[in-house]
Amino acid sequence: MTTTIENNASEATNKAPVDGPALWPAQAQAPQVIGRQLVIEGGEGSYIVTREGQRLFDGTAGLWHANIGHSRPELAQAAYDQMMKLETYHTFARFTNDKADTLAEKLAEVSPIPAPKIILNSGGSDAIDVACKLARRHWQREGRSSKQIILSREFAYHGLHAYGTSIAGLEFNREGYGTESLVPETARISLDDPEQVRRAVEEIGAENIAAIVTEPVQGTGGVNPPSEGYLETIQELCRDNDILLILDEVITGFGRLGTMFATERYGLEPDLVTFAKGVTSGYAPLGGIFVSPRIWEPFYEDSPDTPIFRHGSTYAGHATASAVAIKHLEILRNENLVQRVHDLEPTFGAALDSLAARNDDVVEVRYAGLLGGVTLREEVSAGAVCDRMVDKGFVSRPLRGNTLQVSPPFIVTEQELDDFLAAMDEAIREEAAS
Amino acid sequence: MTTTIENNASEATNKAPVDGPALWPAQAQAPQVIGRQLVIEGGEGSYIVTREGQRLFDGTAGLWHANIGHSRPELAQAAYDQMMKLETYHTFARFTNDKADTLAEKLAEVSPIPAPKIILNSGGSDAIDVACKLARRHWQREGRSSKQIILSREFAYHGLHAYGTSIAGLEFNREGYGTESLVPETARISLDDPEQVRRAVEEIGAENIAAIVTEPVQGTGGVNPPSEGYLETIQELCRDNDILLILDEVITGFGRLGTMFATERYGLEPDLVTFAKGVTSGYAPLGGIFVSPRIWEPFYEDSPDTPIFRHGSTYAGHATASAVAIKHLEILRNENLVQRVHDLEPTFGAALDSLAARNDDVVEVRYAGLLGGVTLREEVSAGAVCDRMVDKGFVSRPLRGNTLQVSPPFIVTEQELDDFLAAMDEAIREEAAS
Repeated sequence: MTTTIENNASEATNKAPVDGPALWPAQAQAPQVIGRQLVIEGGEGSYIVTREGQRLFDGTAGLWHANIGHSRPELAQAAYDQMMKLETYHTFARFTNDKADTLAEKLAEVSPIPAPKIILNSGGSDAIDVACKLARRHWQREGRSSKQIILSREFAYHGLHAYGTSIAGLEFNREGYGTESLVPETARISLDDPEQVRRAVEEIGAENIAAIVTEPVQGTGGVNPPSEGYLETIQELCRDNDILLILDEVITGFGRLGTMFATERYGLEPDLVTFAKGVTSGYAPLGGIFVSPRIWEPFYEDSPDTPIFRHGSTYAGHATASAVAIKHLEILRNENLVQRVHDLEPTFGAALDSLAARNDDVVEVRYAGLLGGVTLREEVSAGAVCDRMVDKGFVSRPLRGNTLQVSPPFIVTEQELDDFLAAMDEAIREEAAS
Repeated sequence: MTTTIENNASEATNKAPVDGPALWPAQAQAPQVIGRQLVIEGGEGSYIVTREGQRLFDGTAGLWHANIGHSRPELAQAAYDQMMKLETYHTFARFTNDKADTLAEKLAEVSPIPAPKIILNSGGSDAIDVACKLARRHWQREGRSSKQIILSREFAYHGLHAYGTSIAGLEFNREGYGTESLVPETARISLDDPEQVRRAVEEIGAENIAAIVTEPVQGTGGVNPPSEGYLETIQELCRDNDILLILDEVITGFGRLGTMFATERYGLEPDLVTFAKGVTSGYAPLGGIFVSPRIWEPFYEDSPDTPIFRHGSTYAGHATASAVAIKHLEILRNENLVQRVHDLEPTFGAALDSLAARNDDVVEVRYAGLLGGVTLREEVSAGAVCDRMVDKGFVSRPLRGNTLQVSPPFIVTEQELDDFLAAMDEAIREEAAS
């Protein structure tokens, strides 16, 4: 296809492309990563192993998902058993499969929303897109279709499908498409100032707002626990103004904060809750949303005129992914792993505070549960510190605001935590001195 | 959250909600399906088994995905082996895993686009959202950011994330959100009239058009093979006007039309190709896109100024899903299943033609490869016919335009095909007489 396009492209392209693998690396500037990629081939518990045989402590639990640790045989067995019986069947119209049904019932038992319905899919980005769609669908069904705007917070990350891209609070994720936002009916609110949010709702007008979406503790935005009273004010604003509250618990769900959901920790009553990562610890691609009765009941009225929410995906309720999730929930419960996070939190917090106290290049530490962020002075690059940590056998990850991610698997020991933060301390000092 | 919302809801809600499972059924009017759901618990080859032990011939291959048939032990083993070694590790920035890398190389070998880069994710909806984003990102990077509109065809289905919803040609999938389209920069083009498409491009202006997206053979829209010269004209229009061509091969990819990709069958040269279902036959949630050099090369220039395509998802290149896909590609090749589809096509077409010839309630049949649609007279409900077929032990599915889906697994025998169409014939007659 086409001389014309090739000519245009070649004007911009005056350097040869770097030679690399067929797989396009995610969220990367290709020339910066190709040639120095870390190919992970194995894992066990809190450790992963590179192609070259280097063993690395997984201090981020991958992308905050590997909560129970890597390569657990029980989950391999659950996947095997299910695939031998039925790899999957879809859940459209009259059809469903036993594992999708069972998983939904098990999720309803631990749901952050009482008496929920559950929409399953394959990950956090999926969950956000369906939550935003359902929020708008709700108001349209209510005859209040002007309520379209989704408010999200500065520095928010909600996946990267078209809706997640549109409500990104990390500006770089929304840029590059020729308009401010792919879905235009969105706006940002303050990270931490509830009064700004109140003013924003007044200025935009509640009659135009469908929902406020927020991570209880922001992840990719730098690990930002809520400021005092912030979430409570958001919830009150939602209640008083007929605005739906969507909690994005893709990172915090299933124990990362020491409670099954952050909803419980912060005493919230959301209308929709998204989940993914922690529901399977990443052993299978699975996510979904919890839907509150006030939203689902009108779609379940016993009447021929009942409206339809026209949504679905081939792998919604994938039987093997569901079987893995069911077994994973058993492990979380049987091994008391959520309680373990709760019990580790004081040690975790003290260790981070101690790092901040002894290292002048650490500007601030923030944490909740087993979720922490270490912000460095601008002059000391978090990315470069992470590279140094890999050389020492430890994985961290740079987040917004020159921050290092600290979110080990729930099975981390206190000794491993100490070693990890000692390596971080050392890497920061080396990078600062370089 | 809230008295106010509850009050509003209750105005619309004057009937009790039907009592049902926690899992929200996909694409269904809840009261029509709850109480008569088919819970699938097992499968083998071309058959699935309900909770009550009824064996059903899977005449649709689920949602056109179960191409190699159900419950193949080799794939259970591949998943098990990989999860025992490493369930997954992410592919962000410097990180990748060996199975994601290997899968991408294997896909590049059979790619419908020469020398591609491959973005992996978890399904067809994901693939469409990233293809549309990348099309717009391409033009913005080229300095032609007015090129934003995505053209899609009447009756098109491209998944249901926010972008797929926005470009839906099946109007009911786009409705209910208070605006014409979630992402506004979209427009529909004719299903089959290339001259209408030419006029649409002129009226909208090529300077405003990023891409045309099309299924080579429409699926959910009713199984619509391209009219004579249609795809060729679309491609020529794209070439002549600097418009990207996105082929949605989620249904047709990996053999459904008797060639590895429809691209080959119809002699096309697309810029982006989406895939999902057939890459794993549904054994694991996996999808992605093939990206042509004219699009990826500028993102791979050996320069510090090289732009970034800010995209990625936790399960992009999921190691276990990738291991399953690698083994699945081996099975497709070792068992010559794509050739089998090619060889079966004449028989398949003749059988459908024969059905149309002998049953007056069949208005039209359409087919390509092992993909067929049987359109009934308006008075004979395709949905009701499908219910009757289930009672006889056969699965079809109603599509747009009162059409029955016929898309059996590639391993179907001629006898099974005859039996399936005989049951369909009978069910149509019974429903017409009722």
